[in-house]
Amino acid sequence: MTTWIDGTAGTCVDPGDRGLQFGDGLFETLRIDAGRPCFWPRHRQRLAAGCERLGIVGLDWPRLEEELHALAARQPRAALKLIVTRGSSERGYRAAAAVPPRRILRLAALPEPPAAPLRVRLCAWRLAIHPALAGIKHLNRLDQVMARREWDDPGVAEGLLLDRRGRLVEGTMSNLFLVRDGRLLTPDLSDCGVAGILRSVIIDRAAEAGVELARRALTLDDLAAADEVLLCNSLLGLCPVGRVEGIGEFRSGPVGRRLQQQLARQATDDSSNWYPA
Amino acid sequence: MTTWIDGTAGTCVDPGDRGLQFGDGLFETLRIDAGRPCFWPRHRQRLAAGCERLGIVGLDWPRLEEELHALAARQPRAALKLIVTRGSSERGYRAAAAVPPRRILRLAALPEPPAAPLRVRLCAWRLAIHPALAGIKHLNRLDQVMARREWDDPGVAEGLLLDRRGRLVEGTMSNLFLVRDGRLLTPDLSDCGVAGILRSVIIDRAAEAGVELARRALTLDDLAAADEVLLCNSLLGLCPVGRVEGIGEFRSGPVGRRLQQQLARQATDDSSNWYPA
Repeated sequence: MTTWIDGTAGTCVDPGDRGLQFGDGLFETLRIDAGRPCFWPRHRQRLAAGCERLGIVGLDWPRLEEELHALAARQPRAALKLIVTRGSSERGYRAAAAVPPRRILRLAALPEPPAAPLRVRLCAWRLAIHPALAGIKHLNRLDQVMARREWDDPGVAEGLLLDRRGRLVEGTMSNLFLVRDGRLLTPDLSDCGVAGILRSVIIDRAAEAGVELARRALTLDDLAAADEVLLCNSLLGLCPVGRVEGIGEFRSGPVGRRLQQQLARQATDDSSNWYPA
Repeated sequence: MTTWIDGTAGTCVDPGDRGLQFGDGLFETLRIDAGRPCFWPRHRQRLAAGCERLGIVGLDWPRLEEELHALAARQPRAALKLIVTRGSSERGYRAAAAVPPRRILRLAALPEPPAAPLRVRLCAWRLAIHPALAGIKHLNRLDQVMARREWDDPGVAEGLLLDRRGRLVEGTMSNLFLVRDGRLLTPDLSDCGVAGILRSVIIDRAAEAGVELARRALTLDDLAAADEVLLCNSLLGLCPVGRVEGIGEFRSGPVGRRLQQQLARQATDDSSNWYPA
């Protein structure tokens, strides 16, 4: 694990950092392949949207990108976590003006991909409805921590989360797609959830892959009726789900395979949205 | 500002700390008076309840209390913020077993009390309904940060928060009491909000002060109809509100004064629940 804090290698974060004090910041988890960050333009766009939403101003983007590419180049394949906080403050919720945001970059080994098709479970923990914080990848992640605490079985790769109204939202660390009658469905995330990067790629390219797509409210009935269930995140890619505990078994199918093939082609098609073949 | 991290003076928090990574922890803000922490037994109880709720185990309570009292003794009057996180982990939401929680104690100057009676405002930011995290003082505080960003006027001492259903919950850093026809009313916090220490003292002692109390859902209509409006927290004590922007003017009244006098008497009445005279 290599850590850079505001451009300097180190293992020392100011205890007054607002990320620690309040979860007052954002993060991105990037896949590094061939020493390059995959889909950085999309991560950058989401991070910028998060800064805009939280009112975090003054992030030194040129230095951040320089650091990101320099750190990525150190390891051919890796997971890079990038945290941006509102910087440090003395006491209280109010942030001092003119304090620069803090950049924390950590390079770690890429996790082993779980055995596909995935075995997943339903979490009992429910996500709150909170449109003002939905979509962005902020540092208030107790929901995900608490949901992930529900199981220890290493054979269970992920837990699916419902919101308080009983709608399917996402996995603790992944986004969800269902296939029904050849059509791709993914939860609308305007009430809660994280708008994942690979999710955005799949949404944008579904038409090219000849797949009709709808973003809408989804329930456990939709899950049970699905022909294919798919989970995706930046580190693991797009994975078929073979079984959801308490719901049923699913098969890898043609829509998931077509989307996987399309993601693999990105490596050559689009260097700005680099993705490993 | 003096900071102790796991018992050692320092300014260096591990970047892998889960408080920074996910807001995975709890905090307490204590008033230090005469070198002693006020209401420590109640803070300890809430912190323990938070650990229980989040499943944070293995906190070294004897060392924590030793550190707390030693740090408090360094300054006659101060604000002491105590953070307990789930400790450090490598990557991902899952916490490693057997990693000890981290203790971070910071001693700062006591903030100047705002001019009483307080001028306060209503925040546009709404709190999510989230019973699973309600009451405890966890580190996911973006709601409070975002609400506090709504004003800069130093003459406005606090902002009041409503939940998404339009119910009055609390201030960004304080709890709310209304007085109506001699009766004390405070929002029920089972859906959201922080169950403050001074709030708990007032609730427990209201009967002794000859004041009838009800915890229930409160709305802006209740606020507008109040005879007295009061805010409290551990650092500022119990303060009357003179004006809520957009709602109206209020007078300091007999119920608030009686409760203030009762709080002042605690100094001599109850050494375990020390409060400055």
